[in-house]
Amino acid sequence: MMFSIKTIHTKELSKKLRNKIDGKTKPISALGMLESLAYRIGMIQQTDQPTLKKPTILVFAGDHGIAKENQVNPYPQEVTSQMVLNFLNGGAAINVFCKQHDIALQIVDAGVNYKFEKHPDLIHAKINYGTQNYQYAPAMTIIECKKAIQKGAEIVTKIYNDGCNVVGFGEMGIGNTSSATLLMAYITKLPIAECVGAGTGLSKDRITQKQNILTEVFKKHTPQSFIDALATFGGFEIAMITGAILKAAELKMTILIDGFIVTSALLIAHAIHKDVVDYCVFAHTSGEQGHSKMLAFLDQKPLLSLQLRLGEGTGSAVAYPLLVSAVNFLNAMASFEEASITSVQ
Amino acid sequence: MMFSIKTIHTKELSKKLRNKIDGKTKPISALGMLESLAYRIGMIQQTDQPTLKKPTILVFAGDHGIAKENQVNPYPQEVTSQMVLNFLNGGAAINVFCKQHDIALQIVDAGVNYKFEKHPDLIHAKINYGTQNYQYAPAMTIIECKKAIQKGAEIVTKIYNDGCNVVGFGEMGIGNTSSATLLMAYITKLPIAECVGAGTGLSKDRITQKQNILTEVFKKHTPQSFIDALATFGGFEIAMITGAILKAAELKMTILIDGFIVTSALLIAHAIHKDVVDYCVFAHTSGEQGHSKMLAFLDQKPLLSLQLRLGEGTGSAVAYPLLVSAVNFLNAMASFEEASITSVQ
Repeated sequence: MMFSIKTIHTKELSKKLRNKIDGKTKPISALGMLESLAYRIGMIQQTDQPTLKKPTILVFAGDHGIAKENQVNPYPQEVTSQMVLNFLNGGAAINVFCKQHDIALQIVDAGVNYKFEKHPDLIHAKINYGTQNYQYAPAMTIIECKKAIQKGAEIVTKIYNDGCNVVGFGEMGIGNTSSATLLMAYITKLPIAECVGAGTGLSKDRITQKQNILTEVFKKHTPQSFIDALATFGGFEIAMITGAILKAAELKMTILIDGFIVTSALLIAHAIHKDVVDYCVFAHTSGEQGHSKMLAFLDQKPLLSLQLRLGEGTGSAVAYPLLVSAVNFLNAMASFEEASITSVQ
Repeated sequence: MMFSIKTIHTKELSKKLRNKIDGKTKPISALGMLESLAYRIGMIQQTDQPTLKKPTILVFAGDHGIAKENQVNPYPQEVTSQMVLNFLNGGAAINVFCKQHDIALQIVDAGVNYKFEKHPDLIHAKINYGTQNYQYAPAMTIIECKKAIQKGAEIVTKIYNDGCNVVGFGEMGIGNTSSATLLMAYITKLPIAECVGAGTGLSKDRITQKQNILTEVFKKHTPQSFIDALATFGGFEIAMITGAILKAAELKMTILIDGFIVTSALLIAHAIHKDVVDYCVFAHTSGEQGHSKMLAFLDQKPLLSLQLRLGEGTGSAVAYPLLVSAVNFLNAMASFEEASITSVQ
């Protein structure tokens, strides 16, 4: 389970990209973040003529032991499997947004507490029927965790081999903001109080209850490595996304990073391989309060800030047309020279 | 030149829209600003099944007397006409983004200092070959200003009659951030220093020079009405956008508001008819420093904040897919009931 992720540093291409962007018929920097986005995608693909091929969003779903007790989650555990069926029936927000932008959507059963029938859009990768409750024991074994990482890498390799070069990750798992909170506290060393949030919509009192429970959980365990932390606090969907991110970076794909849960997986991936973030585009700042602090920790500025806090990869889907805009202006806009326009005096 | 703009207040529809949005398979408010956007478009169209038809961006171009002296603008005046030709040749950023999102694009010669040949995408509506320099005299006469407003209204009526119900406005005019600064100072009563900015890219020293010149201009004139202010400080493209906005609101179209210049036109429209903002969707906060203060004055929160400061309507074009997302989730997402999903316990 080794990933070979290359540092991106090509001075020559960097200069070429800057010159191409600055030569377009617009004042210097006038396309703001679309310019840095075009630059980043060009650097990832190592070309000044990048293209986006077969954009795909993978939604990983998993259940969480702690969610059975309804202490940290307003929705009951069975909503995870119900929402997976909603994805497969095309009725969820992520379906609507992927359809709008011609993004292929695949759902992955990473560890839902439900036995799904076969379905063309569902990838069966179940590690187990939900995790253990980390109030009592690690969420999963190290073996299960490594298996999940491996599986995430395999799924990404498959879509890469099918011609995809830009991939976003989404998730569904009742209780998974608690996992993300614990992983965030472990990696960033911020107190649980700074990491915890409303999730799908807890009241203030119930956030305090969630905070108290997670503080206890955090004290109870002493993970010995990043993988051990992922096994202890994670969900199967989060571990699988970690593997998927690492593999996508190894394959030099452009990776769309969504909200709080997906970024918690990235925190682990980044702890293992710093260079992974150079392959990432940060879609949005989630309304879940810890997310902006995760982004600050990674020193990244996201594209959107629409107070989305739905998960499913919806932030990535909604941000995707901005990637297309960035690539299109780089490839299709005229330069001052081409358009015979007088430059700055 | 009267516009009859209706106040939007339909309690029954408001409740119906809220219920429909809240019933979708997602936590309450989890789609953040996309939910308020769906609500606003529904209210504008007076239906809980809104649709976006023939989206169109009109780019109004005009020249400015003051720009001839190169004191407030880094690019020379002839760049206005050169960029209009670039639009007509399909080489500008706005062409790229409109093509991406299937937005019809029309260019309007509101008052460029150049005689254009006929072109299928160019609307000839020239009021004059550029404005007067307001350092010495009002930019235009009241008669010219009213003619521009009328022309803007006519152009919008035409696209409305062709089936368009969502329209964005863009602009091109070397020197027009100076007009927008003066109009902003007039309406918001903020000092010129708070309104002035780098435009297409002035250095700090040259911003100070621009500020000093505009402060003098502002002292020199005492407009007697909003229309008089528009005539004194405006550009033909700004006056035409003012008329276009007022007419679009009268026709109950959804209006995409772009950056600093377009919002200066809205400030005048809003001073004349307060209700006009209820028909507006605010695309983005521009990188031009005064823009966020204009938005604060109007008490509006824009969708994007990408540090764009190009004009042309590019912010509106890039924000447009978010309107589609809003309308699509409202029309196509499953409700909890339809998807048999357990709601909050």
